Amino acid sequence: MARPSKPKLSLDAIATAALKLVDKHGEFTLPQLANSLSVTASSIYNHVAGKDEIIELMRGRAMSAISLPDIDSGNWQETVQQIATSYWESYSKHPRLIPLLTSHTVRDHTTLRVYDALAEVLEHAGFEPGTRLHAITIIDSFVLGSALDAAAPEAVWEADDSSGQAFSEALGAGLQEKDRARTSFVMGINLILDGLTTRFTR
Amino acid sequence: MARPSKPKLSLDAIATAALKLVDKHGEFTLPQLANSLSVTASSIYNHVAGKDEIIELMRGRAMSAISLPDIDSGNWQETVQQIATSYWESYSKHPRLIPLLTSHTVRDHTTLRVYDALAEVLEHAGFEPGTRLHAITIIDSFVLGSALDAAAPEAVWEADDSSGQAFSEALGAGLQEKDRARTSFVMGINLILDGLTTRFTR
Repeated sequence: MARPSKPKLSLDAIATAALKLVDKHGEFTLPQLANSLSVTASSIYNHVAGKDEIIELMRGRAMSAISLPDIDSGNWQETVQQIATSYWESYSKHPRLIPLLTSHTVRDHTTLRVYDALAEVLEHAGFEPGTRLHAITIIDSFVLGSALDAAAPEAVWEADDSSGQAFSEALGAGLQEKDRARTSFVMGINLILDGLTTRFTR
Repeated sequence: MARPSKPKLSLDAIATAALKLVDKHGEFTLPQLANSLSVTASSIYNHVAGKDEIIELMRGRAMSAISLPDIDSGNWQETVQQIATSYWESYSKHPRLIPLLTSHTVRDHTTLRVYDALAEVLEHAGFEPGTRLHAITIIDSFVLGSALDAAAPEAVWEADDSSGQAFSEALGAGLQEKDRARTSFVMGINLILDGLTTRFTR
């Protein structure tokens, strides 16, 4: 009887296994990763230089779901909103990955292409280089925070005996709203893009 | 010679030890926590019902640094900005804690009081209950995402050979800027508050 063939170790398999650990535990170690792949740590090192590179693989995986629109056509706000929305959708599936990614310098090729597109759209819209980076950062921060909100439990807050009327009313009116998180995200990204336009475009 | 007296276990000591583990590993388990406190897991259970309660203790700890301004006086935007800034400062010290908190229902008393204050200020400014919750969520998401940005390495992005001019220029102009993250946060929160005012206040 033939033995089951050992699956080949690949960058893709490493990223998948690491992402699974992070989704579950918020972190991963090389020994855990080797164990979950049924390989030795040294076989992982045959494919990647270390943990930082695996983090970049996971970043690329999360960003690969983002489809870049044609940046030369149409309204720049719509283009940025389209990129931001697909970025938000992708990250809200992996909330525990977010602080791991933000604590490491972005070096992944796929991810850098998304920022290239954003920067180019903002340049066309008239943002000077310095405010361009602030605009990218503001959009980025809002997307990541909103992705965490989208991954929150349905009962984000639970009022207590001391809760005032203003907050209790807001919870009563808003918490059960269908697509609550998506609506907040869309409202927020529109506010931000309008505000950026008014203040910083030529 | 007297033996060193064993420090008394308290909610405060539990929160401190758990926060230390989360800051380092992005997560904690009851056995790790017991070990770091040199107590048994069952002595921890004498103080708290379980992990969820410890997460609320950490939330309360992070929020306790927030000083609530007098909400009846002055400009509502300034009041919200003051709350948001002290919230941002506190969370940027504990980035790994953020997804752990957002994945649990907010039940901590101190934290709920901050949201009470925000809701009251927004009500005074004229926000209806439904948009009040969206406004709180938008502010919250931006604060948390910006706190992650503030905790990022100085080189947030590293351009590669394929990077376009629009992005490279933005990095060149903005990445070394003194107080880069704070400036982005302040610009962003102002944009958001102005946009909220224009659209949703009576």
